[in-house]
Amino acid sequence: MEGAIDLPSGFIPSSLSQSTILGIYGLSSLLIVSLLWLLSLRLPKLSTTDRLLMCWFIFTGLTHIIFEGYFVFSPQFYKDKTGFFIAEVWKEYSKGDSRYALRESNVVSIEIITVSLVGPACLLALYAIATRKSYSYILQLVISMAHLYGLVVYYLTSYLDGDKFAESLYYYYAYFVIANAAWFVIPCLIVVRCWNKICGACKAQQQGQSKSKVY
Amino acid sequence: MEGAIDLPSGFIPSSLSQSTILGIYGLSSLLIVSLLWLLSLRLPKLSTTDRLLMCWFIFTGLTHIIFEGYFVFSPQFYKDKTGFFIAEVWKEYSKGDSRYALRESNVVSIEIITVSLVGPACLLALYAIATRKSYSYILQLVISMAHLYGLVVYYLTSYLDGDKFAESLYYYYAYFVIANAAWFVIPCLIVVRCWNKICGACKAQQQGQSKSKVY
Repeated sequence: MEGAIDLPSGFIPSSLSQSTILGIYGLSSLLIVSLLWLLSLRLPKLSTTDRLLMCWFIFTGLTHIIFEGYFVFSPQFYKDKTGFFIAEVWKEYSKGDSRYALRESNVVSIEIITVSLVGPACLLALYAIATRKSYSYILQLVISMAHLYGLVVYYLTSYLDGDKFAESLYYYYAYFVIANAAWFVIPCLIVVRCWNKICGACKAQQQGQSKSKVY
Repeated sequence: MEGAIDLPSGFIPSSLSQSTILGIYGLSSLLIVSLLWLLSLRLPKLSTTDRLLMCWFIFTGLTHIIFEGYFVFSPQFYKDKTGFFIAEVWKEYSKGDSRYALRESNVVSIEIITVSLVGPACLLALYAIATRKSYSYILQLVISMAHLYGLVVYYLTSYLDGDKFAESLYYYYAYFVIANAAWFVIPCLIVVRCWNKICGACKAQQQGQSKSKVY
């Protein structure tokens, strides 16, 4: 895996350091999540899990819409010379997966779905949790299934094409494996929780219907 | 779109005619679905919609496991000289989408998920509907979301790569568009139905909890 990777001609390496990019992304995310947490404390009847889920959905929703949205609509991001932050993020991420700079159809198609459907759905989930809508669990489940399906296709296509898209083993593990792992672990937890909640509600309704037929 | 398409070297064209392939596939599917319909009539408390859904899930589940299963485990199907029926099916289908014969990573990754997870889940859905399990709706919804996500990636990757994989416009529409349309229309209907059923159950449970707090 060590060595040169295919990159499109005209690729201009990131002008920001890794720590600057990760620092800005991490701190701005932390700021938004902290603000949302404080706001959520003013909403009644929400459990700590609900508040944590709201933090997750604002983080992932804004990441999809802002960062991945820029990627979808900027096929030439890798030529950017202005030092625009989001272009720098994608140039840096391309060290872990050059398919982004090469604009391979499998990653672009997953990103189109993520930006146009999953991102807005995450913000709707935030609203649904805050206002305790009856569709809250099912929406969370559908979003998390989309995260999981997308991630499995993302990993499988790379594996089938020879896992040859990272500049080094460090970037492979840091960006391709570890940075994406959150979109595996957290959706799995949400799917299990929502599955149990929905099954419980369906069971209660079934039992209610059986009782009302008996009496 | 008319004209030669890329095919792997050593590709042996299908020895069966289109009508033979479609006839055998259609009649065997019809036989299995009819048998299941007759069996389902012996199960009490099932609505016509439930019975129709059982027919859909046995059809799609067996298609995934048998036909797509063969594809996943037979990378050399296009060299088959024995006239084995399922190899002939895939040779014929490759006229509408040569990515199957070329074994492109985006179709193979979708097929791996479909064969290993979605197919068995379809048979579980069949059992869940027949025995009125509390997880029946949520399982149907998850399967249908997987069908939809997979199909959108399938179409988008072809579009992004130039829609150049069909032998002619006839095969493009007949195989690539129309034959796959069932996996768009039916999952959409199932998602809407399950969404409504689950929301109804969650709403009823929420109202029940509110009432029990009032009294």
